[in-house]
Amino acid sequence: MNIYLAGPDVFLPDAIDIGRRKVEICARHGLTGLYPLDNTVDLAAADASLNIFKGNEAMMDAADAIIANLTPFRGPGADAGTVYELGYIAGRGKRCLGYSNDPSIYADRVARLGRVTDMPDGRRIDSLGLTVENFGLSDNLMMMHALDLHGCALVTPRQPPADIWHDLASFEACVRFAADVAAR
Amino acid sequence: MNIYLAGPDVFLPDAIDIGRRKVEICARHGLTGLYPLDNTVDLAAADASLNIFKGNEAMMDAADAIIANLTPFRGPGADAGTVYELGYIAGRGKRCLGYSNDPSIYADRVARLGRVTDMPDGRRIDSLGLTVENFGLSDNLMMMHALDLHGCALVTPRQPPADIWHDLASFEACVRFAADVAAR
Repeated sequence: MNIYLAGPDVFLPDAIDIGRRKVEICARHGLTGLYPLDNTVDLAAADASLNIFKGNEAMMDAADAIIANLTPFRGPGADAGTVYELGYIAGRGKRCLGYSNDPSIYADRVARLGRVTDMPDGRRIDSLGLTVENFGLSDNLMMMHALDLHGCALVTPRQPPADIWHDLASFEACVRFAADVAAR
Repeated sequence: MNIYLAGPDVFLPDAIDIGRRKVEICARHGLTGLYPLDNTVDLAAADASLNIFKGNEAMMDAADAIIANLTPFRGPGADAGTVYELGYIAGRGKRCLGYSNDPSIYADRVARLGRVTDMPDGRRIDSLGLTVENFGLSDNLMMMHALDLHGCALVTPRQPPADIWHDLASFEACVRFAADVAAR
């Protein structure tokens, strides 16, 4: 089973090393991890970003499933590129797995980032008057229920690990689930 | 041609009204707009968010294309639910259109939100040391090139409109493009 390893991990200073660790964990469970940075792209080329896209899309098309790192990134929710890829894999009818190393609830994170108001009708709104999704979910309902219905529920730790960008316990839980499915 | 109308518009105080306006613009161009809030969901039910997901997914499955409002929402980039839906439609092999009422560049928006550092090797990093995608694109490359390759390039105004949440000129440009495609 080929697993596309999506996540903002590619933006870490040690992006290549973390990809290697993820691929090794997959191999230990009999799975093949496909990590976006394994695509060979000349970053100095004018069409570098297009080549990254094409490489990632081809890798997703070669995958049977995704494990998406949905740990909040540069804002209250998951990294946009990762979210796009989760949607793409769901659209292809493939298995969707994901984890977040932040066990908190989306509506609570928005409240920590700025003023929110709980209205008499039950809606929570932010300082611009925009509704804050408030269903007690870890992130936007489209992602969360895509996992529920097309793979398995988001994996989160009870407490945030000491290093949210390098702890791979929840990632490995996803790998174990995928390996169980592959063995059926 | 059925067009799924994705965007954080559903979080606006006048979400139903803006949906009605978008559907009317589609109709004027001979297209059928499918707006997520037209799904009937009991928001007080325990499984409300799951029912919203199922309604949206069924609507996307009934659509031939998406017009995604990718105007930055609650952070430097597009709304996560909308990004998921763009990926899903791309995965289904359907046509991907989108607009943003903010014509700025992603890497510049990140720089406005917090300290960034341009490294000698050309990488821009944020205050946590995480790489900032810096290809001169309006948002994450996965979304931007999905539009380029599976629909048409992101539509943006030259200047941000006075009301970025209610101005529908760029939306209508997407509708015109979709109508041209449908007429071929």
